[in-house]
Amino acid sequence: MPVFLDTRDAGFETDFQVLLSAKREDSPDVDHVVADIIADVRARGDAAVLELTAKFDRMELTADKLAVSAAEVDAEIAKVSDEERAALELAAERIRAYHSRQMPEDAMWTDATGAQLGWRWTPVSAAGLYVPGGLASYPSSVLMNAIPAKVAGVGRLAITVPTPDGVINPLVLLAARLSGVDEIYRIGGAQAIAALAYGTETIKPVDKITGPGNAFVAAAKRRVFGKVGIDMIAGPSEILVIADGDNDPDWIALDLMSQAEHDESAQAILITTDAEFGRAVAQAVEKRLETLERRAIAGKSWEDFGAIITVADLDEAAALSDRIAPEHLELCVADVDALSAKITHAGAIFLGHWTPEAIGDYVGGPNHVLPTARSARFSSGLSVMDFVKRTTLSKMTPEALKAIGPAAEALAASESLEAHGLSVTARLEKLNKPE
Amino acid sequence: MPVFLDTRDAGFETDFQVLLSAKREDSPDVDHVVADIIADVRARGDAAVLELTAKFDRMELTADKLAVSAAEVDAEIAKVSDEERAALELAAERIRAYHSRQMPEDAMWTDATGAQLGWRWTPVSAAGLYVPGGLASYPSSVLMNAIPAKVAGVGRLAITVPTPDGVINPLVLLAARLSGVDEIYRIGGAQAIAALAYGTETIKPVDKITGPGNAFVAAAKRRVFGKVGIDMIAGPSEILVIADGDNDPDWIALDLMSQAEHDESAQAILITTDAEFGRAVAQAVEKRLETLERRAIAGKSWEDFGAIITVADLDEAAALSDRIAPEHLELCVADVDALSAKITHAGAIFLGHWTPEAIGDYVGGPNHVLPTARSARFSSGLSVMDFVKRTTLSKMTPEALKAIGPAAEALAASESLEAHGLSVTARLEKLNKPE
Repeated sequence: MPVFLDTRDAGFETDFQVLLSAKREDSPDVDHVVADIIADVRARGDAAVLELTAKFDRMELTADKLAVSAAEVDAEIAKVSDEERAALELAAERIRAYHSRQMPEDAMWTDATGAQLGWRWTPVSAAGLYVPGGLASYPSSVLMNAIPAKVAGVGRLAITVPTPDGVINPLVLLAARLSGVDEIYRIGGAQAIAALAYGTETIKPVDKITGPGNAFVAAAKRRVFGKVGIDMIAGPSEILVIADGDNDPDWIALDLMSQAEHDESAQAILITTDAEFGRAVAQAVEKRLETLERRAIAGKSWEDFGAIITVADLDEAAALSDRIAPEHLELCVADVDALSAKITHAGAIFLGHWTPEAIGDYVGGPNHVLPTARSARFSSGLSVMDFVKRTTLSKMTPEALKAIGPAAEALAASESLEAHGLSVTARLEKLNKPE
Repeated sequence: MPVFLDTRDAGFETDFQVLLSAKREDSPDVDHVVADIIADVRARGDAAVLELTAKFDRMELTADKLAVSAAEVDAEIAKVSDEERAALELAAERIRAYHSRQMPEDAMWTDATGAQLGWRWTPVSAAGLYVPGGLASYPSSVLMNAIPAKVAGVGRLAITVPTPDGVINPLVLLAARLSGVDEIYRIGGAQAIAALAYGTETIKPVDKITGPGNAFVAAAKRRVFGKVGIDMIAGPSEILVIADGDNDPDWIALDLMSQAEHDESAQAILITTDAEFGRAVAQAVEKRLETLERRAIAGKSWEDFGAIITVADLDEAAALSDRIAPEHLELCVADVDALSAKITHAGAIFLGHWTPEAIGDYVGGPNHVLPTARSARFSSGLSVMDFVKRTTLSKMTPEALKAIGPAAEALAASESLEAHGLSVTARLEKLNKPE
């Protein structure tokens, strides 16, 4: 059973703090191993990548087989059923449509001094996307990472996907094809991250690496950060549902389980204004846990980290939600827009009971790579913005320099940066010299 | 003397690679010390901060003296000269005007299925800004960090500034006042970062920390990342000037020295189409180095990391510039707009010989916190975007769910995430049930 809390209970604040600070992840310390792998790939390139792939993925490859050829992709994606292909195409189309609206605009204007100011956005030249192999090989994640990169205009997009014992997921290849991925390498782990960051004889280095992975991949991403850009290091999945009593308990139970089934460390929380409804949801969860395929995982997550919190009103619910800063927030109340307006910190909001969170995982359009572990307080989900960067622009005229140059001289002097000041002074002297 | 390269020389590519990969920073490994400091502040709060401040800054404080009071700020800023005050006010006004244009817009639309989709931006609730003390205590950096935060709508903005032996820079306090900073604490080092990230009895925790600092501060920022957001970890300053022969060599020399004087590890590079002009700039630098106040620092930087590269034409210059991906790029050629259009990777571009880089450090308007160490390939300077985050929104109607729900069911099945699928199925069953 999950914990049951009520804001009217004396011990609520203490119990809520315990819930907030629960350490759900216990990442093994693999930093030493990862440091060695990265150093090895930097020193020996392809040879190191091939040895590590033989060791970890039981795949004896040669350098010319690191890349999955277009013919192999064709052969694999021919195995995909029509229904799955249509579903993936619909998802790709909707994700592309949503993300196309995120492209930021350039700006350039002239201010009162005559100075031209502005900025422009340009895409990252090359990006790498890590795709986990085996069980957690999700084609939807390929779409969610690759499409924003291509919408941004990334010229070269490479994916790495480990294929332990040679097993590859045809849907992952189809997702890559639909997203416009340019290169696919059958490697994984820290060695894939090292190859993407530093390059090998076969794999050219990229500028930015995104995508989920295990503890080795996460540690490798942290280590190559600075050499390349990385996306966030994602923690276990979370969902918070705020529901009044006017909901089907089974729907809400399924929504909670849809995140709980990801991972034993996932967290599913219900906040409700109706204690009776909360108990009905708990019962519905127990019932579903009898038959769910992933009941062992979902059950453990619910048992260890699940919670049902009864609140006096929706204002209280919104305040608690902001303290949780959930990755996924589902609002199932009569006036969802009013409640949504009261929320400040959440990765994604799903409005109304016709919007189960799972829609957002696949076909809604918004990205499903979202800030976990309360980081929605200061960060956003993956977007086109992760694949572009801004160059600021300034162009002074002689008049503009006369107007603002003296202030720069004064500030340079106050900071004891003489050459800064002189670079302005030299120009102003020329401007102020009688012809 | 700097290195002289020419793209027409046989060894150019090798020499350019050496220049690109020069390791300019040699950060001491202070990670252990910093880990202990953070643990101490987490465990003992104010008491730890006070002890560490006594030890490192030779300041015996009590908890009620950690904050600089409004009366103290008033007293200190009364010491600022009228000229400096006016210069700082002009800078603040111009920085505010530029950054106000960066505020991103919310969006919400209805697609063909009837689904409402969009996003909204909200500010980070509380931010902390680290301001170095002593020599590197730059009021301009306070403006450049604090103003974007306040433009973004950050509700609570705290700064920490160490005051070794009690010395505080009145201009830093004035910059904080002009920027709308809410709280000022006279602490520094890793203990300040720990206090901002985890909070103490006196200092409430923040959600995001920005600002420059020494190796201890940088290591502490890396460690608290995840608990809070951080900005980039900045490396030594860099400038690249692309100039044709039609420039005053002394102006360009001063522009190069304006970054070289920051730090012995700074890097100043000139690319020119005119080898003769390159030699003239080198001579002008030597002349200026005879008298510059910071000639020891600037001279060492120029000697160790300076370069003058002669190219055949401006296309070649643009291509080399993109490989360098400079923090600051100054274009002093006849057609600066044409050359600017060929540049993809740069933190900030300064167009034309009336725009010395130093203008951008103080009063231009754009931010002076910019990506160093070639990270302009994948990252941007500080902006309002660093203090806001996006929440994505989706709201299905029954019709929208009917249209796209089956694709979500198919993809959930292909990823073996049964509860994901069932959360959609349960709703579709209700919709498809005959009344």
